[in-house]
Amino acid sequence: MNSAFKSIGLFIRKDDPVMEKAVIQVTEFLLSRSLTVFVNEPLPFLDELDVISINDFAQSCDLTIAIGGDGTLLSASRALSGSELPIVGINIGRLGFLADITLAKLEQQLSEVLAGHYREDTRFLMHASINNEGNEQAVGKAMNDVVIHAYQSLHMIEFETYINGRFLNSQRADGFVVATPTGSTAYAMSAGGPILDVDLDVFVLASVCPHTLSNRPLVVAASSVIDIFLSENNTSSAMVTCDGRPGHIVQPGDSIRIERYPSNIKLLHLEDHDHYSILRAKLEWGRKLTC
Amino acid sequence: MNSAFKSIGLFIRKDDPVMEKAVIQVTEFLLSRSLTVFVNEPLPFLDELDVISINDFAQSCDLTIAIGGDGTLLSASRALSGSELPIVGINIGRLGFLADITLAKLEQQLSEVLAGHYREDTRFLMHASINNEGNEQAVGKAMNDVVIHAYQSLHMIEFETYINGRFLNSQRADGFVVATPTGSTAYAMSAGGPILDVDLDVFVLASVCPHTLSNRPLVVAASSVIDIFLSENNTSSAMVTCDGRPGHIVQPGDSIRIERYPSNIKLLHLEDHDHYSILRAKLEWGRKLTC
Amino acid sequence: MNSAFKSIGLFIRKDDPVMEKAVIQVTEFLLSRSLTVFVNEPLPFLDELDVISINDFAQSCDLTIAIGGDGTLLSASRALSGSELPIVGINIGRLGFLADITLAKLEQQLSEVLAGHYREDTRFLMHASINNEGNEQAVGKAMNDVVIHAYQSLHMIEFETYINGRFLNSQRADGFVVATPTGSTAYAMSAGGPILDVDLDVFVLASVCPHTLSNRPLVVAASSVIDIFLSENNTSSAMVTCDGRPGHIVQPGDSIRIERYPSNIKLLHLEDHDHYSILRAKLEWGRKLTC
Amino acid sequence: MNSAFKSIGLFIRKDDPVMEKAVIQVTEFLLSRSLTVFVNEPLPFLDELDVISINDFAQSCDLTIAIGGDGTLLSASRALSGSELPIVGINIGRLGFLADITLAKLEQQLSEVLAGHYREDTRFLMHASINNEGNEQAVGKAMNDVVIHAYQSLHMIEFETYINGRFLNSQRADGFVVATPTGSTAYAMSAGGPILDVDLDVFVLASVCPHTLSNRPLVVAASSVIDIFLSENNTSSAMVTCDGRPGHIVQPGDSIRIERYPSNIKLLHLEDHDHYSILRAKLEWGRKLTC
Repeated sequence: MNSAFKSIGLFIRKDDPVMEKAVIQVTEFLLSRSLTVFVNEPLPFLDELDVISINDFAQSCDLTIAIGGDGTLLSASRALSGSELPIVGINIGRLGFLADITLAKLEQQLSEVLAGHYREDTRFLMHASINNEGNEQAVGKAMNDVVIHAYQSLHMIEFETYINGRFLNSQRADGFVVATPTGSTAYAMSAGGPILDVDLDVFVLASVCPHTLSNRPLVVAASSVIDIFLSENNTSSAMVTCDGRPGHIVQPGDSIRIERYPSNIKLLHLEDHDHYSILRAKLEWGRKLTC
Repeated sequence: MNSAFKSIGLFIRKDDPVMEKAVIQVTEFLLSRSLTVFVNEPLPFLDELDVISINDFAQSCDLTIAIGGDGTLLSASRALSGSELPIVGINIGRLGFLADITLAKLEQQLSEVLAGHYREDTRFLMHASINNEGNEQAVGKAMNDVVIHAYQSLHMIEFETYINGRFLNSQRADGFVVATPTGSTAYAMSAGGPILDVDLDVFVLASVCPHTLSNRPLVVAASSVIDIFLSENNTSSAMVTCDGRPGHIVQPGDSIRIERYPSNIKLLHLEDHDHYSILRAKLEWGRKLTC
Repeated sequence: MNSAFKSIGLFIRKDDPVMEKAVIQVTEFLLSRSLTVFVNEPLPFLDELDVISINDFAQSCDLTIAIGGDGTLLSASRALSGSELPIVGINIGRLGFLADITLAKLEQQLSEVLAGHYREDTRFLMHASINNEGNEQAVGKAMNDVVIHAYQSLHMIEFETYINGRFLNSQRADGFVVATPTGSTAYAMSAGGPILDVDLDVFVLASVCPHTLSNRPLVVAASSVIDIFLSENNTSSAMVTCDGRPGHIVQPGDSIRIERYPSNIKLLHLEDHDHYSILRAKLEWGRKLTC
Repeated sequence: MNSAFKSIGLFIRKDDPVMEKAVIQVTEFLLSRSLTVFVNEPLPFLDELDVISINDFAQSCDLTIAIGGDGTLLSASRALSGSELPIVGINIGRLGFLADITLAKLEQQLSEVLAGHYREDTRFLMHASINNEGNEQAVGKAMNDVVIHAYQSLHMIEFETYINGRFLNSQRADGFVVATPTGSTAYAMSAGGPILDVDLDVFVLASVCPHTLSNRPLVVAASSVIDIFLSENNTSSAMVTCDGRPGHIVQPGDSIRIERYPSNIKLLHLEDHDHYSILRAKLEWGRKLTC
């Protein structure tokens, strides 16, 4: 077979309940194609594979295959943003928004991708930093969302939001979400945000349990610089999380800056990939309320 | 003057930024009426007043005057539920839902109440308890709401709800609110709950950022026993708070029971008190969206 | 067999796509039990049945069997409210909230009901009337909801709402819904209303596309008299509908009064009927948003 | 004075309750600057002005001044889109989103604009057309929104939506709104849509009272072609309206196409114009829910 890709990096998450079976099935398939295979974690059941850090994937591989679910693909994307390395996801659980190759059709679907029959889907990421009395500290990258939340649940937070230096509003709420189109169907949606078509260069800003009843989600250009100033009135700290990972504590008086990350990530999909079809399936749009 | 009440207990919150001026104004007015006055906290600026615990108000007083805002009145109500002692609130800040006597009209409005010209407004409370492997532990009383929330902000909680022993549903959400009509315009409203008319014997159950898109607030009879079972799947603890006070930690596998508290509390309002008028003012119903 | 019911009235809707098969199956089953059977519409395929008006069911029958779906059961309930005649529903389509006997288990389930093994479920109705310059005109009864809506779609309506003669608010909206607990999962839910437990004596009032952003659904006692005054400012007429049936036109300056109907209706359910289970199934609460 | 504009077209709406005073004040000011003034409607109280159609403004004028409110400015924008003629709005009523010159500061503010001290704000419009068995019929242009609604209030409509020929979903709802960023704070917001920053090239699609509980607003690129197919199952007609004007009737089986209109419109604002400040004022973001 003539593959567009010669050297493949397998990406798995150590804390993922990845079934051995899935990784073995993928590896055997790739080796049967005479492809070179790397993996980011030592696997007791596949100890002949070369283990290299995800940070070295870009120089050693042509393609990353993320095995797991959407969360695994988010991890891979954050790690690989800044490189040109494309990623394809193999979904071993429920239907995902991002990973659309399934184990049941692994050979056929992966063959198509390897043969160059795929659709590129460029997604952007954002990054967050904390400004504490002039000291800037990076928080990290996010592909779904950056969330600022009261650190302990009984408090809410008071904050001011600026877009490109222009004052938007002052709020009290349980939290605040800034999401990419990729993340618009994740936590931002639970907070009342709209669905953003995945090809849009926009962010959605949504408040979690806002005190102001007329608060509404706001969609702004992804080129915007978003600054959130935690009021000195807050009596306790808050937490900033990127894609739901363990976060950074921020103090009253600190500010959080959220911006588009300068590099994108390239996801590969099957040629018949249809995002709306996934939306219909995952959001149960076939169901109607009836009485 | 012929007062329906002879002995008055003043209730203030130590942590409240109560202006000296307000307490002095109220006290002087009451003493000028030859009424007996107690207070629940020693006041450096009024050290001639007898200080007694709020727990002794019922046996020493005919009326409690809570000076502060709605929060102060909630505190007094929780403390006095179980007694027959009526409460009237003096609002020293913004318009409140509960406390409707204002400092500006103090003498006139308090005179009317003391002369027996008032409307009684009976409110009910609820109480919460935690069941940990068979050990039951009281959490406390609430007049607004009992909230169960992920203890740290990046997790959500998974739980099952039962109403009178009947399974309602299984959910994942940031939190869960059970509110009285009194609390329906507080946190429950931020979570999307409806307004409950204050004379209804019902609870509203509302989820905070639910993962299930078809989740909706549910109104049930206040005679219901509500049990919330924290799934063993939760990887971290949760917190139960009553009226937003510092809460109790609950562990995966624990359950929280929420029930109506057996005694009510009696608020006194001015005769022209109009709850709908307060709703209109506080929720800004005079404002229309216009474009 | 010893039946608690001797004479059965079958209720079908002329405009319902009732399958002949269902009616024949029910009739044959009842006749095999030596029960007397009436029907409210002449049936070409069952012309031996006695046809009597639904208005005569109460004096000739012990039980009404409504064959169709929830809509058929609503029709039967409106017609029979005021009598003591119980109703049981046979569902020939999708899962219903009200009709829980299915054709697949007809013989077994109907046998149980006829043997007296059932649960009574009392529901209340409401009725609406229009006041036009002092002339009162009945609009009809509703078991789900009374809806006031701009008559033609491009206008909205402006109106004032009073509860028991007390002014609630003035609004501009596309429409306004007053729903019973039975109707809380129908149109009121599309308009953002909460779920009301079916045993509550309350109404929910919800605005359709309100202009005031802080508008929220309101739950009031079912003993309330609700008056909606259409502002003279409206430039076109509105329509009042009961349970979605063709409605009455109302003019600027008219008012609509909505009250509980004095008699209830008695639905019979199977002994294992579980309303929460139906809610979970119909609102898809088993589904979670996942990303 | 040296004006950037020499010839001014005044635009008023015949059906607008425009105060004579406002038009006279504007006219006198312009004539005192030795500018040429046209008006689109004969004015009995200013009969010396030359009356020309809005369609001739582009060839005779350098600037349009729309006197009224946002609605007047929407009308002017629809009429002038396709020309290069800029528009400035004078607001004679409540604070508007679009028209920010006030009568109180007319001379000062208009002087600044005439002197070339203004900010340009480019907005896009959309247009709608109906396809009836192959016959295409233009409906019109809209700067805020295109709304499809059941023609008479008791019915809902069933329809399928396609974005760029790709199937999005099938729905039953009272109606459907497609709005520009300009219109995102108008009807779309009442239907639950987010606020779109005014400089974004996107549409928001929002359903009015959708039957599917997991329905959410969707934001798509403004370059999208949106087709809405009215199901043959609909038992009555629907109506399409542009910016709320009297609409076109559409029948079951018809489809409606909504696209960006090829030309933009140029609004002129004062240099200190701040859209977020207007949002805060109009949506009452200074107000907090407090209890």
